[in-house]
Amino acid sequence: MKGEEEIKKICGEVIEKIRPDERERNKVKTVTDFIIAKINKKASEMGIEAHAISVGSTARNTWVSGEADIDIFIMFPADLPEEYLKEKGLALAKSISEKYEERYASHPYIHAYFYDAEGTEHEADIVPCFSVIDASRLKSAVDRTPFHNEYIVKRISGLEDEVLLLKQFLKSAGIYGSEQRRKGFSGYLCELLILRYSTFAELLRNASRWKYGERIDIEGRGKYKGEGKDPLIVIDPVDPKRNVAAAVSLDSFCRLIDAARDFLACPDASYFSTAEKKEMNKAEFIKLVKERGTEFVMVLFDAPDVVEDILFPQLRKAEASIARLIERNGFRIYRSDVSVEGDKAFFIFEFLVWNLPKVKKHIGPPVTSRYHSEQFKSKYASQQSLRIENGRYVVEIKRKHTNVVELLRNELRSCSLGKHVSESIDRGYEILKNEEIRFFEGIGAFFRHYFGFD
Amino acid sequence: MKGEEEIKKICGEVIEKIRPDERERNKVKTVTDFIIAKINKKASEMGIEAHAISVGSTARNTWVSGEADIDIFIMFPADLPEEYLKEKGLALAKSISEKYEERYASHPYIHAYFYDAEGTEHEADIVPCFSVIDASRLKSAVDRTPFHNEYIVKRISGLEDEVLLLKQFLKSAGIYGSEQRRKGFSGYLCELLILRYSTFAELLRNASRWKYGERIDIEGRGKYKGEGKDPLIVIDPVDPKRNVAAAVSLDSFCRLIDAARDFLACPDASYFSTAEKKEMNKAEFIKLVKERGTEFVMVLFDAPDVVEDILFPQLRKAEASIARLIERNGFRIYRSDVSVEGDKAFFIFEFLVWNLPKVKKHIGPPVTSRYHSEQFKSKYASQQSLRIENGRYVVEIKRKHTNVVELLRNELRSCSLGKHVSESIDRGYEILKNEEIRFFEGIGAFFRHYFGFD
Repeated sequence: MKGEEEIKKICGEVIEKIRPDERERNKVKTVTDFIIAKINKKASEMGIEAHAISVGSTARNTWVSGEADIDIFIMFPADLPEEYLKEKGLALAKSISEKYEERYASHPYIHAYFYDAEGTEHEADIVPCFSVIDASRLKSAVDRTPFHNEYIVKRISGLEDEVLLLKQFLKSAGIYGSEQRRKGFSGYLCELLILRYSTFAELLRNASRWKYGERIDIEGRGKYKGEGKDPLIVIDPVDPKRNVAAAVSLDSFCRLIDAARDFLACPDASYFSTAEKKEMNKAEFIKLVKERGTEFVMVLFDAPDVVEDILFPQLRKAEASIARLIERNGFRIYRSDVSVEGDKAFFIFEFLVWNLPKVKKHIGPPVTSRYHSEQFKSKYASQQSLRIENGRYVVEIKRKHTNVVELLRNELRSCSLGKHVSESIDRGYEILKNEEIRFFEGIGAFFRHYFGFD
Repeated sequence: MKGEEEIKKICGEVIEKIRPDERERNKVKTVTDFIIAKINKKASEMGIEAHAISVGSTARNTWVSGEADIDIFIMFPADLPEEYLKEKGLALAKSISEKYEERYASHPYIHAYFYDAEGTEHEADIVPCFSVIDASRLKSAVDRTPFHNEYIVKRISGLEDEVLLLKQFLKSAGIYGSEQRRKGFSGYLCELLILRYSTFAELLRNASRWKYGERIDIEGRGKYKGEGKDPLIVIDPVDPKRNVAAAVSLDSFCRLIDAARDFLACPDASYFSTAEKKEMNKAEFIKLVKERGTEFVMVLFDAPDVVEDILFPQLRKAEASIARLIERNGFRIYRSDVSVEGDKAFFIFEFLVWNLPKVKKHIGPPVTSRYHSEQFKSKYASQQSLRIENGRYVVEIKRKHTNVVELLRNELRSCSLGKHVSESIDRGYEILKNEEIRFFEGIGAFFRHYFGFD
């Protein structure tokens, strides 16, 4: 087949660019070994019963060239108390580098910096965890990672290139990474998909036919319930009650299907390109707004100081709550979105209807419901507009807010904004419309994506 | 009770004004007898086996003073063919007056004019019908009337004043008459309600507690199915499968309930007033439109040459069809109405949203539906706006009509307008908005009612 050869040729060219070379691999290995040795030495000096292991893509040779993330887990005996791990584990992790930050996902960990012989900087995440007997007996979520690592290390040899192609393809499509901002495919999920389908091309051929609720169970032991709620179900081989693809949103799922079909129909190296495109500038934005005839309103505030995986779900819930307020007041949203760029967070609403007449219909009780009718009529008795419509009393009242900006100024805080968003908005926010929207760092990329220029 | 006495007093005063006096009754009787005698004489001259009877409110002494409608039915043997009745019946009816018009309801009939000794004009409807054995064996809808007449004549004596009060009360509330324009209470229905409750006041006390689907069955032999679809069910004593109140709309039903409660709470002679109020003028209308902030659009055309009972249901169906067109295109109607005033018919739409942006979301198939996805993508492949939203392809297209007047100009004729409305609109129509709306005869009364100044 012409298509298959074409795909092979393109993948062959791409892989040469994204596969780490001997030199990069050696460097990563040297730094990794150095960190592990240092942790183990320190541990014994501090009298801590723990040992370090290398996990993640650098442990499996599945990192894309130039993007090595060294992941080191420090394994503590499972019978120790959590407090011990938190205290001693972090102290141990901090002790091995002079430059580090304490970070927090489901557990605290250390993000540290190291320098090789040539002075190149390497970054590593150092994560204390419990060494549990099996992955169904976790003491914390991070305890699962060593099991994932072991499972993949034992099986992935010879398939690394296919994993790299998949990761690069997903990156280019904007759906690599399971973080809440993106809701895409994690590295571990990529590896499992390649284990299932053997090659990148074969995965794409299958993905192009996926249906909602697609189920992949490599070991055939899946106990995951909750079918129907996830578009993609990939049973975790080390924990059969878990869906590795739980973070994949419907749209990320669909974007893989869509990209797979497009690539198979017209294979091209551009499907692996991650080159940054030109940001949209304000003049282009204003021209587009005018052409569309819609109204853009941005609610802008300082990004709350929490990790994005906590912030993004909160922003999306707040967006839905604000949208309900807006629609309940009769305005109509065309599209909306949220984002965090730099130290700013924002909601964007694009409106079909942002002004409404002063008059508003207030629908009362059915006339046949005597008690409620009396209440209603005594309240509105003096209103000339009181009438009967479809068996109910109806009266015309003055609309509280005839403009959506006015509505947001007055009632934004009545929405369910979530703890961190709410606190930040309480400290201050701006409501900007159309040409008032400022093009701070990152907003140009946001709108480029919003308008589909990606 | 203070209330009861008050009601008695007011009703006593009202009845003196609306009860026909001796002189009026004698005049009506003389004219009626004259017509009957003349018909019977003519029939025997023409060799037609038929006789005339007086029916309706003048036969039962239940007409409101000054509003006598003389109804004369010419009874033909039931075994004659319909053609015979149509031909000979109308010929007979026409032969007794020099001034008449041929009219049409469910059957053709003659509307004739007569003059008494003093030269006063009297109008009478002369209706040929079949004399069937009982009301369940009708040959045409008008054959039922003689049975109604007989039923009421036998029972109403002594209750005529109560019937008059009810009729006048309903007239004042704008819900007297079962014609399609009004969908209110017919004279026969008024008489049955009084037979059921004995007095006007007792009827009101009951009506104030009515629920949807209220059932009244004087003879206790009701066989009427279709409960749930009519707000009020009054079994026809002469045809137990028929609902005499079938024409009463939900809103007319509710308006009686509402007026009954109000009158009982604060009895006042104004509840019997039918004085015409001042029509709204154009300046008042324009001021109101400005205050409301809405947009009024009138679709104006020549009233089709059919009876209102055929025209009004057609106008209302057309109104619903146009409303669907409007809402389907994204605009939002606040209120709408139809009417016929003089030789003009029209639809009125009052809008909350009458302008929309150029851009429009066109929602495509689910991405997982491969065949439809390919069709959709090949059609919109070049569109920069093509994206995935909630698992479906979405593309932005240009909205066909960004203004509701433009929409109506272009697509009004695609609506289900009904035969007569459609033919008239094909001959020409105008679309007028706000201050363009002309205040021809009757339109001021229409808007006075629309805005609740009645």
